[in-house]
Amino acid sequence: MTDTIDQAAEFTARDAAELVAELTLEEKASLTSGASFWSTKAVERAGIPSIVLTDGPHGVRLQRGSSDHLGLADSVPATCFPPAVALGSAWDPELAERVGRALGEEARAEGVGVLLGPGINIKRSPLCGRNFEYLSEDPIVSGVLGAALVRGLQSQGVGASLKHFAANNQEFDRMRASSDVDPRPLREIYLRGFQRVVEDAQPWTVMCSYNRINGVFASEDPWLLTKVLREEWGFEGLVVSDWGAVNDRVAGLPAGLDLEMPSSDGRTDAQLVEAVRAGRLAESALDLAAERAVRLAQQAAAGADADASYDVDAHHALAREAAARGVVLLKNDGVLPLEAGVRVAVVGEFARTPRYQGAGSSLINPTRLDTALEEIGRLAGAAPAFAPGFTLDTKAVADPALIAEAVAAAEGADVVLAFLGLPAAAESEGFDRDHLSLPEAQLELLAAVRGANPNVVVVLANGGVVELPFAEEVPAVVEGWLGGQAGGGGVADVLYGVVNPSGRLTETIPLRLADTPAYLDFPGEFGHVRYGEGLFVGYRWYDARDAAVHFPFGHGLSYTSFAYSALKVSADANGIAARVTVTNTGERDGREVVQLYTGLTGSAVQRAPRELKAFASVELAAGESRVVELAVRREDLAYWDVRVDRWVVEGGEYLVAVGASSRDLRAAAGVAVEGDAVRLPLTMESSIGDLMGNPVAGPIVAQALGGLFGGDPAMAAMADDEGMAKMMASFPIGRLVGFPGIPVTREQIEQLLQAANAGR
Amino acid sequence: MTDTIDQAAEFTARDAAELVAELTLEEKASLTSGASFWSTKAVERAGIPSIVLTDGPHGVRLQRGSSDHLGLADSVPATCFPPAVALGSAWDPELAERVGRALGEEARAEGVGVLLGPGINIKRSPLCGRNFEYLSEDPIVSGVLGAALVRGLQSQGVGASLKHFAANNQEFDRMRASSDVDPRPLREIYLRGFQRVVEDAQPWTVMCSYNRINGVFASEDPWLLTKVLREEWGFEGLVVSDWGAVNDRVAGLPAGLDLEMPSSDGRTDAQLVEAVRAGRLAESALDLAAERAVRLAQQAAAGADADASYDVDAHHALAREAAARGVVLLKNDGVLPLEAGVRVAVVGEFARTPRYQGAGSSLINPTRLDTALEEIGRLAGAAPAFAPGFTLDTKAVADPALIAEAVAAAEGADVVLAFLGLPAAAESEGFDRDHLSLPEAQLELLAAVRGANPNVVVVLANGGVVELPFAEEVPAVVEGWLGGQAGGGGVADVLYGVVNPSGRLTETIPLRLADTPAYLDFPGEFGHVRYGEGLFVGYRWYDARDAAVHFPFGHGLSYTSFAYSALKVSADANGIAARVTVTNTGERDGREVVQLYTGLTGSAVQRAPRELKAFASVELAAGESRVVELAVRREDLAYWDVRVDRWVVEGGEYLVAVGASSRDLRAAAGVAVEGDAVRLPLTMESSIGDLMGNPVAGPIVAQALGGLFGGDPAMAAMADDEGMAKMMASFPIGRLVGFPGIPVTREQIEQLLQAANAGR
Repeated sequence: MTDTIDQAAEFTARDAAELVAELTLEEKASLTSGASFWSTKAVERAGIPSIVLTDGPHGVRLQRGSSDHLGLADSVPATCFPPAVALGSAWDPELAERVGRALGEEARAEGVGVLLGPGINIKRSPLCGRNFEYLSEDPIVSGVLGAALVRGLQSQGVGASLKHFAANNQEFDRMRASSDVDPRPLREIYLRGFQRVVEDAQPWTVMCSYNRINGVFASEDPWLLTKVLREEWGFEGLVVSDWGAVNDRVAGLPAGLDLEMPSSDGRTDAQLVEAVRAGRLAESALDLAAERAVRLAQQAAAGADADASYDVDAHHALAREAAARGVVLLKNDGVLPLEAGVRVAVVGEFARTPRYQGAGSSLINPTRLDTALEEIGRLAGAAPAFAPGFTLDTKAVADPALIAEAVAAAEGADVVLAFLGLPAAAESEGFDRDHLSLPEAQLELLAAVRGANPNVVVVLANGGVVELPFAEEVPAVVEGWLGGQAGGGGVADVLYGVVNPSGRLTETIPLRLADTPAYLDFPGEFGHVRYGEGLFVGYRWYDARDAAVHFPFGHGLSYTSFAYSALKVSADANGIAARVTVTNTGERDGREVVQLYTGLTGSAVQRAPRELKAFASVELAAGESRVVELAVRREDLAYWDVRVDRWVVEGGEYLVAVGASSRDLRAAAGVAVEGDAVRLPLTMESSIGDLMGNPVAGPIVAQALGGLFGGDPAMAAMADDEGMAKMMASFPIGRLVGFPGIPVTREQIEQLLQAANAGR
Repeated sequence: MTDTIDQAAEFTARDAAELVAELTLEEKASLTSGASFWSTKAVERAGIPSIVLTDGPHGVRLQRGSSDHLGLADSVPATCFPPAVALGSAWDPELAERVGRALGEEARAEGVGVLLGPGINIKRSPLCGRNFEYLSEDPIVSGVLGAALVRGLQSQGVGASLKHFAANNQEFDRMRASSDVDPRPLREIYLRGFQRVVEDAQPWTVMCSYNRINGVFASEDPWLLTKVLREEWGFEGLVVSDWGAVNDRVAGLPAGLDLEMPSSDGRTDAQLVEAVRAGRLAESALDLAAERAVRLAQQAAAGADADASYDVDAHHALAREAAARGVVLLKNDGVLPLEAGVRVAVVGEFARTPRYQGAGSSLINPTRLDTALEEIGRLAGAAPAFAPGFTLDTKAVADPALIAEAVAAAEGADVVLAFLGLPAAAESEGFDRDHLSLPEAQLELLAAVRGANPNVVVVLANGGVVELPFAEEVPAVVEGWLGGQAGGGGVADVLYGVVNPSGRLTETIPLRLADTPAYLDFPGEFGHVRYGEGLFVGYRWYDARDAAVHFPFGHGLSYTSFAYSALKVSADANGIAARVTVTNTGERDGREVVQLYTGLTGSAVQRAPRELKAFASVELAAGESRVVELAVRREDLAYWDVRVDRWVVEGGEYLVAVGASSRDLRAAAGVAVEGDAVRLPLTMESSIGDLMGNPVAGPIVAQALGGLFGGDPAMAAMADDEGMAKMMASFPIGRLVGFPGIPVTREQIEQLLQAANAGR
């Protein structure tokens, strides 16, 4: 034991580059791919240990031994925390960090060096089968919460793996399809969250995705893995492939893919060795990848603790807290919260057989499992009437006997709690949904139960959003998402007011699938998916088109009420600072998620009318007031300027609005922001309009045009015409050379441009 | 005179290539750019004459002499036929061909060799300032009518110039912006009409557009100007630049740009000579362009007739006929047609001062000009009460005195005819609109007049569609477009029932600008415009999203009614043939535009639910029945398959629907169409799903997977899971090599692929 500790201490103290310099070519190559499904290779001769990387993100999915060929079978018990869809809905980085810490404790206790998560891909379409594993349709929400999870996890000496990098927003043909995205949406929507997590939290690893981006596999894209990730963002860790994402190992290595997972049985190591020997691959590139593998092993060794354990009960309690915090009260006419004395009937199989996590690589073997039915019985003081109403078979049609039983239960109750949702087979890693409906059998059950007792509270369990055609017909709708192993308790806590709900939608709930931004080009065809909606993802689309939604981004009700006042906004070199007084104006303690959106009317570039830039989750006792401070980083105001290939803050009067959702804004103020200078030299391709806008060239061009048009009255009238002026303004100056009747030489224009560019 | 004719005969008899072989390098270069704004260079030594190319498309805009530096001032009188927006609304190739013939007669009479038109760009956004010059949002309408215009024009020995080739769908930054369009929309929407006109009518010239396409200037794009236009479509004529569209002459010539217009004052001729001398340009490329220029001059010489003239009166009558045929009766509760005895008040300056054509290069100096006011007086038997109501100054606010006068006129009338529309300054070549509203002063006038007399018929004059927020409040709305010099008469004819309206919308009228497909990325920024809506242009968008519109594509009312019956549909190697009986079930003679749409449910590729594939304009006396035959060409069923870069007809059961508009379908039938074979070899990149679908590989892969999963019960359950099956199916077969626990070698997979590709 002491020996092991000593060896580990010696290893972690070594300089990685020096250590790599002592390795053979084959040894170095061996460090760049896995030993098995879940572990890296050791180089025992050099004291480099193997480390274990295993699936997260919301629990430790560790497989002992190699019982399973494909890495998908049973794993050791671990706490199943709420998946990202629920955790994200709390909009609370402090909570996310605590969950991250707990995940780190469990990983460390199991000897896991890297837990594969968080997943922060943008929810481009509600159809994406893996949306339950992702945080939001908004990059600030994804980035802030993702960074908190990484901080928490890594505080325990366990590495994160930020995934899936990048533009991996669907499951359909995910291993080949190219996400064809223009520079602005790629930077401002799809990469922005990754950038924030890397810059704020330095995850030990980043996991490249399966897909291609604009035709290039993420696993062999030097622009993505090196230029953007390392050179622009300063990433210092290791890039690992998604499991099976390697297409061409020899191309991937110098692009920046350090570690291939899982094992390739030595096949690709040999390819690398051969490529170096043949001069097709620089050995220095291999050295770099090996160094990063060594450094990762050092980090893992430093964080390892063979005596570590964790408190299963405490983690279950945290899972319940997080689940309750993620519940979104979509609608409530006052029927909620329930009093203990109310006669409740529970219908829906999900109350008894919870759907609490998604399928695929994140499937956890939970330490225990709450059901809503039992937890409701506990809070109500007695077991409620229960009828399953439907089965979890997605293909089953409505069963009249089950419905009759549920109707009978409903008839005798004050309130019916209908637990509806998506069966596990309806959404998973590996495929996308093709509609947003709940199963027909459940909708029929609901209609029948409502006929018997209209006082129905719908409680939902689903990883991706669903259409809610019944929302206007029932007094309350509770979105419980997939709540993890304590999700049943978390929902019960909200229903009975043990927890005052404060969850908010991190994605829009549309009225219909056909309204969603990506509807017409999701999931693409023949290896390409065009991100045709560009920047206008999620609420940005609905707002820009002034289109109706069912429940807007940021929405979520409380059992108390909040008032906003005294908004003050200022701007400086760091960005925008806002202060607003929020008051709990109701009778219950509660929590408000204060959201800040900016807009810039008359912007020189396309923009959504409102973009989330900051948020805060604030606990307020009944009657309490607090000044909430929200800071918008200057870089978050920037757009990606394709003319100069960099972030640029446009100057102007920004509108800053704060409120309880993207469509429930309570206060707004303007603030002047100084822009970044973008000086583009005038060239022969510049338009006459560009020149007119230049202080030096403008007057000269105006005079020349005056002379040209001045000759006869008809021409003079034309020159005065606004349309003609616009047409002329769009003409590239260089094209005037030799144009009939235009007495200007190339040399004259060149002189003019020179003078204008010199500012004289 | 005889000498001239002899010379011309001798010239036209020469072999162009031989003639070019006799020219010097400088002479050849001189043939590839203009002599002036409107003429090509002669080579007198070799007997090659100069020819004149001048603006159309809806009239001959010939400038005598060089009174004007920029080619924009007054021209000789010519008949101003209805611009494309109105002519297209007749949906009648026979009428379009007659107008084309008349244009040809006028051009020949003026000694014009090539008339610059038709313009058939797709109306991507209603904001495009030049939409009045374009035919439709649909490529079949644009292509069929464009071909008819070319046929008519060229029948008179005058060349057409099909423009603006290609993807030139906005005026903003038109000389630099890149239209970034994916292959399918580019082929299926933006190029399809051009292809049809080239293949059906062989225009003498095609005019390349100003813009770039996917980054490459149209004027120097070998893919566009040579591969697609000549090699794929078989174009035999000459490519001319739009005026000022040349960016790099030396790059453009070998790409396929034969003739630069206007003159470059010899500058670019010298560049070509120098490039050939320096070996940077193959002389053969210059020979080819010169040959095409000679052939064009030969065609023009052969068509020329110094004695030609035309019948001004007959052409004015044709202009009136065409104008009336283009009028679209959007709404009518029965107030129309007007009887002669009805007391009519006319309000709106447009009745007296018609807006009848667009501004820019197509501006015609008309031979005469009808006003609606006078023509109404003529048909009514007496001059109606008239009040202008507003001025044509776009910036003017409502004038209370003008409104009061109009209200007074309205009060004494049975019916008020309100002539509203867009002033000339609101839309033009050279800039785009930024909204779809009528001027506020006109809306205020309408409100006031309606207050005095609700029986208001709104008559519109506009080149691009406008929002019609008042349509539900008035008994009738007549869309008169820009009707050419006899537009006033054409509208009067429809109002009084002299002509029973049969015009149909060739573009959707949306409820709001914010609903339009290109709303969020029109007109782009910083030199790029992404065609993010892809294939879903116009009605394709609204139908695919099941979204409301104000008036759908194809819509237009009649004073009679039509019934559809006995639809019969069959398919063969040429396409689909449909026969349907159409009956005029009303009391008036009339004309029905029968439209045929196809759809393919469950298609392997993205498709609009309905796509127009054929149409026919049919005149039917009251009570008359006729069997209408509609032929869908097989090539019009094809989609552009990006896997094989060619047109492919997908096999399946097509739904064929016929009716009076895209949303007024009266009969439908299914028809089985045999698909084109697309054999793609299986490769290491093929997915397991691809292999499963192969008759040879499928059973082998299934057996192998069975073995893999069969080992333990948990794995077997997984293999049965539908989601897991989908996930597995997307895995590229080549990536299995070396995967932990998968006992397959690269050689084994290669053998399997070989066997599958060999079909054994």
